[in-house]
Amino acid sequence: MFFHQKKLQYYKRPEQPDAVYAKKIQELIGGTFGEMTVMMQYLFQGWNCRGPVKYRDMLLDVGTEEIGHIEMLATLIAHLLDKAPVSEQEEGAKDPIIGAVMGGSNPREMIMNSMNPQHAIVSGLGATPSDSVGYPWNGRFIVASGNLLADFRSNLHAESQGRLQAVRMYEMSNDPGVKDTLSFMIARDTMHQNLWLAAIEELEKDNLETTPVPSSFPLELEKREFAYQFWNHSDGTQSAEGRWAKGKSMDGKGEFEYIANPEGLSAEPEPPMPDPKLHGTPKGR
Amino acid sequence: MFFHQKKLQYYKRPEQPDAVYAKKIQELIGGTFGEMTVMMQYLFQGWNCRGPVKYRDMLLDVGTEEIGHIEMLATLIAHLLDKAPVSEQEEGAKDPIIGAVMGGSNPREMIMNSMNPQHAIVSGLGATPSDSVGYPWNGRFIVASGNLLADFRSNLHAESQGRLQAVRMYEMSNDPGVKDTLSFMIARDTMHQNLWLAAIEELEKDNLETTPVPSSFPLELEKREFAYQFWNHSDGTQSAEGRWAKGKSMDGKGEFEYIANPEGLSAEPEPPMPDPKLHGTPKGR
Amino acid sequence: MFFHQKKLQYYKRPEQPDAVYAKKIQELIGGTFGEMTVMMQYLFQGWNCRGPVKYRDMLLDVGTEEIGHIEMLATLIAHLLDKAPVSEQEEGAKDPIIGAVMGGSNPREMIMNSMNPQHAIVSGLGATPSDSVGYPWNGRFIVASGNLLADFRSNLHAESQGRLQAVRMYEMSNDPGVKDTLSFMIARDTMHQNLWLAAIEELEKDNLETTPVPSSFPLELEKREFAYQFWNHSDGTQSAEGRWAKGKSMDGKGEFEYIANPEGLSAEPEPPMPDPKLHGTPKGR
Amino acid sequence: MFFHQKKLQYYKRPEQPDAVYAKKIQELIGGTFGEMTVMMQYLFQGWNCRGPVKYRDMLLDVGTEEIGHIEMLATLIAHLLDKAPVSEQEEGAKDPIIGAVMGGSNPREMIMNSMNPQHAIVSGLGATPSDSVGYPWNGRFIVASGNLLADFRSNLHAESQGRLQAVRMYEMSNDPGVKDTLSFMIARDTMHQNLWLAAIEELEKDNLETTPVPSSFPLELEKREFAYQFWNHSDGTQSAEGRWAKGKSMDGKGEFEYIANPEGLSAEPEPPMPDPKLHGTPKGR
Amino acid sequence: MFFHQKKLQYYKRPEQPDAVYAKKIQELIGGTFGEMTVMMQYLFQGWNCRGPVKYRDMLLDVGTEEIGHIEMLATLIAHLLDKAPVSEQEEGAKDPIIGAVMGGSNPREMIMNSMNPQHAIVSGLGATPSDSVGYPWNGRFIVASGNLLADFRSNLHAESQGRLQAVRMYEMSNDPGVKDTLSFMIARDTMHQNLWLAAIEELEKDNLETTPVPSSFPLELEKREFAYQFWNHSDGTQSAEGRWAKGKSMDGKGEFEYIANPEGLSAEPEPPMPDPKLHGTPKGR
Amino acid sequence: MFFHQKKLQYYKRPEQPDAVYAKKIQELIGGTFGEMTVMMQYLFQGWNCRGPVKYRDMLLDVGTEEIGHIEMLATLIAHLLDKAPVSEQEEGAKDPIIGAVMGGSNPREMIMNSMNPQHAIVSGLGATPSDSVGYPWNGRFIVASGNLLADFRSNLHAESQGRLQAVRMYEMSNDPGVKDTLSFMIARDTMHQNLWLAAIEELEKDNLETTPVPSSFPLELEKREFAYQFWNHSDGTQSAEGRWAKGKSMDGKGEFEYIANPEGLSAEPEPPMPDPKLHGTPKGR
Repeated sequence: MFFHQKKLQYYKRPEQPDAVYAKKIQELIGGTFGEMTVMMQYLFQGWNCRGPVKYRDMLLDVGTEEIGHIEMLATLIAHLLDKAPVSEQEEGAKDPIIGAVMGGSNPREMIMNSMNPQHAIVSGLGATPSDSVGYPWNGRFIVASGNLLADFRSNLHAESQGRLQAVRMYEMSNDPGVKDTLSFMIARDTMHQNLWLAAIEELEKDNLETTPVPSSFPLELEKREFAYQFWNHSDGTQSAEGRWAKGKSMDGKGEFEYIANPEGLSAEPEPPMPDPKLHGTPKGR
Repeated sequence: MFFHQKKLQYYKRPEQPDAVYAKKIQELIGGTFGEMTVMMQYLFQGWNCRGPVKYRDMLLDVGTEEIGHIEMLATLIAHLLDKAPVSEQEEGAKDPIIGAVMGGSNPREMIMNSMNPQHAIVSGLGATPSDSVGYPWNGRFIVASGNLLADFRSNLHAESQGRLQAVRMYEMSNDPGVKDTLSFMIARDTMHQNLWLAAIEELEKDNLETTPVPSSFPLELEKREFAYQFWNHSDGTQSAEGRWAKGKSMDGKGEFEYIANPEGLSAEPEPPMPDPKLHGTPKGR
Repeated sequence: MFFHQKKLQYYKRPEQPDAVYAKKIQELIGGTFGEMTVMMQYLFQGWNCRGPVKYRDMLLDVGTEEIGHIEMLATLIAHLLDKAPVSEQEEGAKDPIIGAVMGGSNPREMIMNSMNPQHAIVSGLGATPSDSVGYPWNGRFIVASGNLLADFRSNLHAESQGRLQAVRMYEMSNDPGVKDTLSFMIARDTMHQNLWLAAIEELEKDNLETTPVPSSFPLELEKREFAYQFWNHSDGTQSAEGRWAKGKSMDGKGEFEYIANPEGLSAEPEPPMPDPKLHGTPKGR
Repeated sequence: MFFHQKKLQYYKRPEQPDAVYAKKIQELIGGTFGEMTVMMQYLFQGWNCRGPVKYRDMLLDVGTEEIGHIEMLATLIAHLLDKAPVSEQEEGAKDPIIGAVMGGSNPREMIMNSMNPQHAIVSGLGATPSDSVGYPWNGRFIVASGNLLADFRSNLHAESQGRLQAVRMYEMSNDPGVKDTLSFMIARDTMHQNLWLAAIEELEKDNLETTPVPSSFPLELEKREFAYQFWNHSDGTQSAEGRWAKGKSMDGKGEFEYIANPEGLSAEPEPPMPDPKLHGTPKGR
Repeated sequence: MFFHQKKLQYYKRPEQPDAVYAKKIQELIGGTFGEMTVMMQYLFQGWNCRGPVKYRDMLLDVGTEEIGHIEMLATLIAHLLDKAPVSEQEEGAKDPIIGAVMGGSNPREMIMNSMNPQHAIVSGLGATPSDSVGYPWNGRFIVASGNLLADFRSNLHAESQGRLQAVRMYEMSNDPGVKDTLSFMIARDTMHQNLWLAAIEELEKDNLETTPVPSSFPLELEKREFAYQFWNHSDGTQSAEGRWAKGKSMDGKGEFEYIANPEGLSAEPEPPMPDPKLHGTPKGR
Repeated sequence: MFFHQKKLQYYKRPEQPDAVYAKKIQELIGGTFGEMTVMMQYLFQGWNCRGPVKYRDMLLDVGTEEIGHIEMLATLIAHLLDKAPVSEQEEGAKDPIIGAVMGGSNPREMIMNSMNPQHAIVSGLGATPSDSVGYPWNGRFIVASGNLLADFRSNLHAESQGRLQAVRMYEMSNDPGVKDTLSFMIARDTMHQNLWLAAIEELEKDNLETTPVPSSFPLELEKREFAYQFWNHSDGTQSAEGRWAKGKSMDGKGEFEYIANPEGLSAEPEPPMPDPKLHGTPKGR
């Protein structure tokens, strides 16, 4: 069960509206690695968690925090869309604020043409659950597998992409308010990268999972002879120069081997003929 | 530029057809973490790679290998769909093979009703680029960000989910051929988990990236005071028991802190009124 | 900012597992009118609300409640998936519970074949953010337009479809635990239908909106002569028998009129020829 | 069975081409509440209707009218895209019409850069079945549930969002032709809002449905004690100030009650452990 | 503008209900090559047609016919879903019809478990705008390019896949009513394959288009030396055995050539370094 | 199994960056008829092919070539995005290259506002698997039916749309490098249109398939009396003027017939009443 506290976790109002920037920052709400993704991913992982309760509680804590991050960004977008020009300017109604923001070189029409049209037509200048090109967030963006190491690696990756994108948005703005709000979110992403690294360490300390995931699958059931080979699938061997091509494997259970000129191990496939009732093309005479 | 060698990388034919299992194993082709994902993800990362050439070559090598994994699974699905019952049995035409496979307890109709209908209607008993519920693979499943550490963490996570799913499919089959083919793929996933862990180590050794990603963003630009705090967003404090709540942070640059009773740091949001031409509901009297 | 209380709003555990029912009840989580829809719809409407604060607060209260409804259903699905058969039965390991549940007439294999395969392969027997056929929830399922009457009508419709679907799920179960949990959710849907009807009345009382939406658009700008006509687009005139065909219009501003044999009011369209550089087919000689 | 009359229901040609406006007005064809939605929704509701024939006939009449609305908008978009600049201007080929339209401040390049690129590349300056950001219309946009009150409420909401969006497009244009065509469509939306309100009244008059939907479900089967409570899920009680918090409920069957400080009614969830063959993370020691 | 005639174009009622077959035949309504596709494709092609009026009229005639085909299939699905078992059987209420249909070997539960759950939960036993796995129809299924030869080839292909799928559904049924209705639709697909072949011939006769499409693009602008080469991208040369590898090209403008051992014509790609503000991984030392 | 040759099949570097053109040319990678479509379509057709081996080999050869086409376009996009402006210009840092490209009339801001925001935020100036409006490629874009004539017609259509779109992109550019690369791809599309026409001829020569597809379905099972009729579904008879309305049918098996005033052949549909447990609206009194 959830509760809402009306204060925002953190927020600084942008000094100037910027409808085109509002379009772009939608990526942080509804993009593949936006706040809707981490919120839903952590909540579903928490609800599906069968591991020790500290993991479950932690997942739900962080997932709940992320709902508030959507709230912060939705507020930010509403302010960025303030006074967004949605119709052609009437005579005598020159808008000095827009003019000032844009320094004359960006006419009102450019903003009208470049903003997300759904911000005007569909949401009436509010945030939408979609990304910076207007593609909607969807449930395939998240994973909750029941295996905590697999999922924590997913979370680490999501926070890495998420911080990278937030940093890019930071660089793309000159507005002190926007930059201030983002610098809070970027710091939280730093925490969350550290958090998932810590949780991975904790899982190993608790003897619950290790590499390769899932570690509960008996290694002798996989074809061990292929478990540490790098197959070179190209001309040239620059790929032999990395750590992955030689030395002890990272799981400590094997030795990397570089196969410079691999060959297929099995014959050409021969798919069987389907039922004639399906009217596929037969092998012929 | 690419070339096709007609031999399969590895393959063992299933001993028995099993149309329902064919439906399920589609997850490994077109699911969120199926072979289409890793293939496209590694190829796009390679094509977009601006880092040292060993990374680019390595990414394209592995991406190219994965095309062959789709090929193996497509072959497997064709064999699993062999003799799939697509119409009701005509009198006098009892199919002894189906009967044998199913041991009598699985009537022909159950298979007809439970297989993916598109395997009959759309693909004529061939594999499709979709997952185990028939949802098509799509481009939002992959990421290629230009930041190699962010992307290698994504790859590590994809191979973790991928191996987990392949192991589950292994457990769900009794067919020696299927299990043999999967035990090769599971071994390759072991390699690939090790590969991305090694690539992460290599990146740090090359002084290219470290935690937090992106490491080229000056830390003093983020709000450092919030960069190592765990905010407890629930009643109870079981989440205080993990590594993420105390001690040195994983990046070695801070100290974890547990905020047991957090409060919002900013006031309630007040979104501005939009242009009346958008006919939203105003604040009223 | 949001907080999580670990107790569930309401819950009764199902007496028996039922993996196929778990597949179906996903509709109430991630379907077009599932809890993810109402949660996200009310939260975005609240965040984007510029009307009087009582509406904003109310929207966020109800949206926050709905997060807890997803939690209840995720818990329910985990219990329904308990002991779900994911592999063929080993000899000597007959599972008496499954047998008892199914009364002998539903073999283990039927459940394996009929459950959502992603419940085993992807989520490890947990709920997923998708509907009863495995299609993922997406952001286009919701609307937050900034016009409260338009949105409250949307909410009323969502709760109507939602209660209808919950009732259907109630009828489709024989399990006292499932029925008890659903009877709570159905009651909440009753409240929420009443809530949105009340909110619509309140909006009119506050003189903020009325029919036709948006009421702030001057009626003289629409072609009033067509604003109350029913055009009969078929042979036969049974459609003349309803309230919509005669009498005072519902907004009290016009009189319904039935056009039995309508004719197009404008000439055939003549689209202009595009630039030859687009290589469309021209009108010819 | 359907027939086409070549005359348009109504149409006024725009005075000036405007490729960027053409992009935006796609929302009214293929957006969530565009004409494709109402057309398909009413037709499927009509085809699936088992209620009295007047409803079925009415639904199919209106659905058939909506096909013609797509036709009108497709014609409009073709005219708006007339002479759209799709390549950089050749020397000596200054296009006076474009210049005049844009008043000099909107260079040709801005239009080229801001129009929907698929209008040039994919459709050769014709309409497409997608919305204003290019996202395709899809079947999850509609509902036809078999319960007429649930569906009529959906229709009322669709026409409310639809008229709101058409009005916004009207405000965003200065072209007399565009405004004239839209003022016809806005009037039809007025009719259709009145129509669905009338149909709702008719259903109640016919004793077929009432609140709460579905009214055929015995109320005693829901947990009546929760059917009229408003749960306050936040700090502060502004949500207590509305009609939904006190007084007789809208269905006349209960009394609203405001729960200022609600508590969860059930214990924390305890999801059961899945089969070890799924290799989820166990509860640990 | 469109009109509805209440009689169906053609229809024979199925003799027996069959809810699982109803799920499958959804492919013909909302699948990639279902009736919604051809309807929308031909209508949009007609509305966007700038070629001679006979083509436009013909496209709209056939598109209008296809609306009626959706209607036929929606009717068929309603009959197939008649008496579909949606809940477990109450004692003493054995349903003799279901028993008879299924011949005892298909218990009621199998049908309940195998039918599309949305046919019960969402549509109340009516057709839905989705395919046989429940995936919704979407606007990217169609094309209307403005080039009639490109589009007529698309139509020919759609009718080929469409007839193939209808034939497969015919083979998968034993019901005389279903087979009769399908045999009408299959005949119409025969007509429509012939129609598009005829339209292609007519276009060439009218000197409007020929191979290669678009024929208005001057051939000397393409790299003619590569316009008739078959590049062998694999070991082995079985691909040399076809008509495409030797002899005069089909457009009569070149000679096929088989390149047995092709080599890339350009150097390795070297993507430039992005702005450091994007924090991608640089080339390193 | 596949291999990568590091040389590109063909490539000429663009002379100037152009971030907006980069957005548009994404259509050729991830659009409905982009290279991802033909690559995946031909590979799946090849893997599923049961016809003579020359077809299978040919399909896989061409599919493999297409992977290299994605590679060419990804390289092209990286070059087009070179120096793309992603943040507002700092003082004193005027970028002379951008200025020169744009000739002064296109300010830096216009490019920033018009490029695909995901090219900066998500991919760090690399190509993405999506189309020109940012919609992701998905598996429903392809078909592999097992019937070679149906599929070859699909391939012919894909290459027709593909060449049309490549030609449009050619016309929309002034950059000699871009035009050179495209003129290679356009030539390959010419080859591939010829290829599929040749393959269709070969199939007929091999007596494997002919019109109507699938030709293995006995014609007497379809309602032959409707197999060559053109039904006029509109007022006016311009559609009677084409080849499809009279004369011998294209398959040589019938005679076209024009039905000027068709009537529905069957009565109005009467869908049966569903189970009351589904709470649909009944027929009433």
